[in-house]
Amino acid sequence: MAKTTTSSQAITYKQAGVDIDAGDAMVQLIKPMVQATHNPRVMDNFGGFAGLFRLDFGEKLFRKQYRDPVLAACTDGVGTKLKIAFLMDKLDTVGIDLVAMSVNDLVCGGAEPLFFLDYLATGKLDPRRMAEIVKGITDGCRQSNCALLGGETAEMPSFYKPKEFDLAGFAVGVVERARIVDGSTTEPGDIAIGLASDGLHSNGYGLARRVLLEMAGYKVTDCPAELGGSSIGEEMLRPTRIYVKAVLDVLQKYKVKRPVKAMAHITGGGLPGNLPRVLPEGLTVRVKEDAWPVPPIFSLIARKGPVDSIEMKRVFNMGVGYVMIVAPNFARSILASLHRDGQRAWIIGKVKKGGPELQWH
Amino acid sequence: MAKTTTSSQAITYKQAGVDIDAGDAMVQLIKPMVQATHNPRVMDNFGGFAGLFRLDFGEKLFRKQYRDPVLAACTDGVGTKLKIAFLMDKLDTVGIDLVAMSVNDLVCGGAEPLFFLDYLATGKLDPRRMAEIVKGITDGCRQSNCALLGGETAEMPSFYKPKEFDLAGFAVGVVERARIVDGSTTEPGDIAIGLASDGLHSNGYGLARRVLLEMAGYKVTDCPAELGGSSIGEEMLRPTRIYVKAVLDVLQKYKVKRPVKAMAHITGGGLPGNLPRVLPEGLTVRVKEDAWPVPPIFSLIARKGPVDSIEMKRVFNMGVGYVMIVAPNFARSILASLHRDGQRAWIIGKVKKGGPELQWH
Repeated sequence: MAKTTTSSQAITYKQAGVDIDAGDAMVQLIKPMVQATHNPRVMDNFGGFAGLFRLDFGEKLFRKQYRDPVLAACTDGVGTKLKIAFLMDKLDTVGIDLVAMSVNDLVCGGAEPLFFLDYLATGKLDPRRMAEIVKGITDGCRQSNCALLGGETAEMPSFYKPKEFDLAGFAVGVVERARIVDGSTTEPGDIAIGLASDGLHSNGYGLARRVLLEMAGYKVTDCPAELGGSSIGEEMLRPTRIYVKAVLDVLQKYKVKRPVKAMAHITGGGLPGNLPRVLPEGLTVRVKEDAWPVPPIFSLIARKGPVDSIEMKRVFNMGVGYVMIVAPNFARSILASLHRDGQRAWIIGKVKKGGPELQWH
Repeated sequence: MAKTTTSSQAITYKQAGVDIDAGDAMVQLIKPMVQATHNPRVMDNFGGFAGLFRLDFGEKLFRKQYRDPVLAACTDGVGTKLKIAFLMDKLDTVGIDLVAMSVNDLVCGGAEPLFFLDYLATGKLDPRRMAEIVKGITDGCRQSNCALLGGETAEMPSFYKPKEFDLAGFAVGVVERARIVDGSTTEPGDIAIGLASDGLHSNGYGLARRVLLEMAGYKVTDCPAELGGSSIGEEMLRPTRIYVKAVLDVLQKYKVKRPVKAMAHITGGGLPGNLPRVLPEGLTVRVKEDAWPVPPIFSLIARKGPVDSIEMKRVFNMGVGYVMIVAPNFARSILASLHRDGQRAWIIGKVKKGGPELQWH
């Protein structure tokens, strides 16, 4: 950046609220964190106009796995969960949520994440605070084995309060065309496996904040007995679980027999809004409601609203963050593989004729 | 989405400010526009968890052009130019800006855009207004020949005013590794060709709004004589020019001799902030200041601030939206190719030893 001087009466860009030098300072702070997510397929281009990622690095290895590669791409944000981060002034985990929201969507189709980009818009560009946010993003990238290939930080004083910000994330992955998981082979008798969530994840915060912080009047530092020692803020800020490694391990292990028929990331809309999206017409899942423990944060919200149990299910994940629909003969061994990968997971239901609404029993 | 009923005392997600059904209505409105950007490489997955793009469609054709494909990815927003769209309540062109900001960055490295995703966050999800925004995005995608592969619309009532929104965009392209344009072959004597901008594009709005709307007190409907008939609002909302087709035509035409050494998209930071980024150390460009006409909007801002001429150059594109550094023997024919493609373009300077600051004369 060329340094310039201006006459004292004249107005400058910095006086108008945008600080280009702070942007440069931030770039220096985040550089080592970003580079720690890189692999030999990332081409060194820091400061260039685009991030570059070699598709054919180790050409034979790539070609062996991908004869007809299909790129998969997702975008998402963190929503009003960010307000909890503002209230607690804890910025280093919402980046994990940001990555989780996109990469968990990506693996639903069977895609392996390759790289991620972030958009961060704020009222005032404070390099140290921005670097904390990027730290969470790089943590999420390392958990899902994808490179943080680029990002944009926008200082928009008239849009956001000085200490507030919004985040958007974009993930690109690759899947062999013949191995796309699209739900089409699902049939009656298939088993639904639910993977445990770590609480609210990144959806339903409009309702959760309204009930807990406004109607019930909790402060983020309050520790209601139901939460067993966690504060309201800790519980509401807990990062979204990233399922990438556990899911890709299962797909890799069973890549010949392909018992995984369909997968759904349980986000806004809950099980009723997300599971039917991946089922063929005429099929539904009969969900066994007591098959898994509902985390206490959900019972607390339901009671403090009160929020009707049907509405609760339509808004929140209720303890199941990801669902795999699998062939019945493989259900037990897939469950065991998930457990070995450190996931809590349960058989939560069975595919039946009917739908599109889920059946509950 | 499963329909549900709730008891009358209980609170619902919609009462808490988030309307899932409006999201579904929006998806129906934008579906035909989005599909018009698609090509046979886009796999039909509307409503799925990820957008899917076949890399090897027409396998032989792709392999013929790409033996060692490198993916390029960019992200950007529109910044506070959005405020002008709010003031004028004209929403159907900021999407062109959004696409332009990313795809113009993408072609700087020589990459051909493949697909685009958008993130749209707003205070209140009004399906008709959101569809207008998406119309602009699809216009931009068609101008740059890329598919709108996915997007996220977030309703965040506590972040944005009901009629306001923020936008982020994400573009992915591909370039043959041996044909990446990275500036490394630039040498003294090379020629800088400037491509005309269409005014402010999407940068410097913090300063432009402060000077024109606050200090000078213009309304967006005012038509100062300098602007030759355009209103302040029309001039400030004019979409960012998309250079993709013109640039790719030049690269394709000269793909054997490769006279294009470096390219820069002139955004925030102006020529001094963007051109040095693509030059090897020890080289600079001697810019001939009177080589192109500065559009009247810039003179108006400089006079009404007043804004120092050095600061003007550091913030605004001053009429040059994109620069190509080319071998001197090819400068005239490349210029002619750009003119045939409908671009106004001029020789604006020459590469010299020195730098990193640009030299002006």
